[in-house]
Amino acid sequence: MLETTIAEIRPPDPVAMTAARDLQARLTKPAGSLGALEELSVRLAGLAGVCPPPLPEPAAVAIFAGDHGVHAQRVSPWPQEVTAQMIGNFLAGGAVVNAFARQAGASVTVVDIGVAAPLPFPPTHAVPDSAAVPAATVPDSAVPDSAVPDSAAPACAAPAPADGTLAPPRLVDANVRRGTRDMTVTAALTRDEARAAVETGIRIAGELLDAGAGVLLTGDMGIANTTPAAALVAAFTGADPEAATGRGTGVDDATYRRKVDVVRTALQRHRPDPADPLGVLAAVGGLEHAALTGLILGAAARRVPVLLDGVIAVSAALAAAALAPDAVGAMVAGHRSAEPGATVALRHLGLDPLVDLGLRLGEGTGALLALPVVTGAVRVLHEVATFDAAGVSEK
Amino acid sequence: MLETTIAEIRPPDPVAMTAARDLQARLTKPAGSLGALEELSVRLAGLAGVCPPPLPEPAAVAIFAGDHGVHAQRVSPWPQEVTAQMIGNFLAGGAVVNAFARQAGASVTVVDIGVAAPLPFPPTHAVPDSAAVPAATVPDSAVPDSAVPDSAAPACAAPAPADGTLAPPRLVDANVRRGTRDMTVTAALTRDEARAAVETGIRIAGELLDAGAGVLLTGDMGIANTTPAAALVAAFTGADPEAATGRGTGVDDATYRRKVDVVRTALQRHRPDPADPLGVLAAVGGLEHAALTGLILGAAARRVPVLLDGVIAVSAALAAAALAPDAVGAMVAGHRSAEPGATVALRHLGLDPLVDLGLRLGEGTGALLALPVVTGAVRVLHEVATFDAAGVSEK
Repeated sequence: MLETTIAEIRPPDPVAMTAARDLQARLTKPAGSLGALEELSVRLAGLAGVCPPPLPEPAAVAIFAGDHGVHAQRVSPWPQEVTAQMIGNFLAGGAVVNAFARQAGASVTVVDIGVAAPLPFPPTHAVPDSAAVPAATVPDSAVPDSAVPDSAAPACAAPAPADGTLAPPRLVDANVRRGTRDMTVTAALTRDEARAAVETGIRIAGELLDAGAGVLLTGDMGIANTTPAAALVAAFTGADPEAATGRGTGVDDATYRRKVDVVRTALQRHRPDPADPLGVLAAVGGLEHAALTGLILGAAARRVPVLLDGVIAVSAALAAAALAPDAVGAMVAGHRSAEPGATVALRHLGLDPLVDLGLRLGEGTGALLALPVVTGAVRVLHEVATFDAAGVSEK
Repeated sequence: MLETTIAEIRPPDPVAMTAARDLQARLTKPAGSLGALEELSVRLAGLAGVCPPPLPEPAAVAIFAGDHGVHAQRVSPWPQEVTAQMIGNFLAGGAVVNAFARQAGASVTVVDIGVAAPLPFPPTHAVPDSAAVPAATVPDSAVPDSAVPDSAAPACAAPAPADGTLAPPRLVDANVRRGTRDMTVTAALTRDEARAAVETGIRIAGELLDAGAGVLLTGDMGIANTTPAAALVAAFTGADPEAATGRGTGVDDATYRRKVDVVRTALQRHRPDPADPLGVLAAVGGLEHAALTGLILGAAARRVPVLLDGVIAVSAALAAAALAPDAVGAMVAGHRSAEPGATVALRHLGLDPLVDLGLRLGEGTGALLALPVVTGAVRVLHEVATFDAAGVSEK
């Protein structure tokens, strides 16, 4: 399945790109005055193979959640159970990604690809291509209820989320293994496990696109997952571990130095070969990173844009580009994460981010902030009048 | 009226700001992980005097249109009649600002504050506080019809805009004079004309807020209006004309050098005093710049945020800040225009832009691209669950 998907990924269509450039030049605005949005519209025309390309609507966020054996090396101050607790928060609609998704009209699909402990709530959706897990709705009692007033809170409390007309977030059970192994000791994943996660990502992409999504957004949740992301960035770009490693959720100096050492140790132990992307993902990756690699490949094979979030997403994008260089044509860099590894990866991919506001939250939040820019860039090609049609003089 | 408005502008409320900072620290995300959005939410709480501050909805774009006597100095390659032609394009819904406004659900109000020639279409709306101009709808025949197929266009043509459920753009006739005077020869405006334009901006702000707007966005249209903007930036910040002047719609080297000389000549002739902001606007400003100064002051007096577009808006913001320093608390810098004067002005105001994508179109397009970021920053305070409420462990 991975090989079939890779074979379907083609370079951008130069005819559609030329048509988009020509149209931009005839629209009622000075040439070039929309800056980066003009080239973005040209790229998306090339991806779709048609001008104007379809509006990237509706949007679907896929949040892959996993845990990490390397958490044992104390690379994060957060307890590992927060991964599962945050899944409850996503399903209850109480996380930042939910607030941004409601605003953007985007659906939220949470995929348990590798959470360490069994989740205390049943999946709302069967794993794609599997009849083993029955679909069920989440009972109210199973998820934390953010609508319950926080009696200890001061006057300025967060009211309950109002979901509006969007379908509620759903949970897919596609657990490949209950957390990766500690990459400082052994490979994080077997090659088969890495492949299974990548192929789950491809399946999720296909399912979301079959349901009508016009753009996919990458999301992630996994305590300690910036550590494997840094290792992936270093492995694929050749950057020194110190340049690829950041402070994640905001670790102190001692933890940061330990984190750099952990990345360096893992890379020295496994010496992953960037020409063997599945091997790199297995040695020093995470299950959510591998699944995001698949999501990106799945979108690229269907010629639909995939909006990248932060450092987890761009480390997965490096693996996708190593597997299929033309997949870069489907990637739109949503934002520049505060994690230094994200900038290293974006430079390697040749992508400029749309938003640069110092976010380092993950979940898909940076991709969601950038979504209106992407939609706006395409909308211009659909809706703006030409000089001729509007009767406006040219210079 | 100007003096009354200035007297109403107050500093931000420190209690609401503290409440917003406290709430941000209790929400289910690592502290500081929303980057610039966190401080933005704190500023908006301080402006509104309450936490959470109201969601900035619905949004209203006010596009002030004017012409410029300095156009005679050949500072722009575009003919002056494009100002009026683009008003027709705005009313027909065919400009980029219309496409972005439809996407954002924002209303568009076009104000003829100083167009040189009488407009060939009647206003749709009376000038505020005036019974002289009757309200009337724009007949279909009066505006360029961008829905007419462009038969000469190649296959990739821009289809007609689809307005959805938003009210159509409207036109307010508030013409103060038919274009400014050439500032290299004499003052662009009399002091009374400058004041009339500022007070019209205040009235438009009041009218839009009375109609329920939760945020105002600055828009502008005026061939050659980056030249007075550069002069205003140089006058208020002390920057050299060369540092404050850009290429506007994309002028060639010879025109750029002439433009710098024109700005320098005007400043040397009038020696405007930044301690007398109305005098500066009269000497080297434009009618749309003066009206935007009023719009900003009007929003600040009502403690509602005003989202600044490009160099025209930030040059007007310098005048507003000179008249009422606390007005800066209501300003949100939408984007960093490619015009160098915009960066000089933003630095002077102490504002960091939300979007930085090389736009140099004006109309309000950069402000509209930033609007979802502002809404998202406030939405987090309304909708995201706290650690306690969601049952998520802290580090």
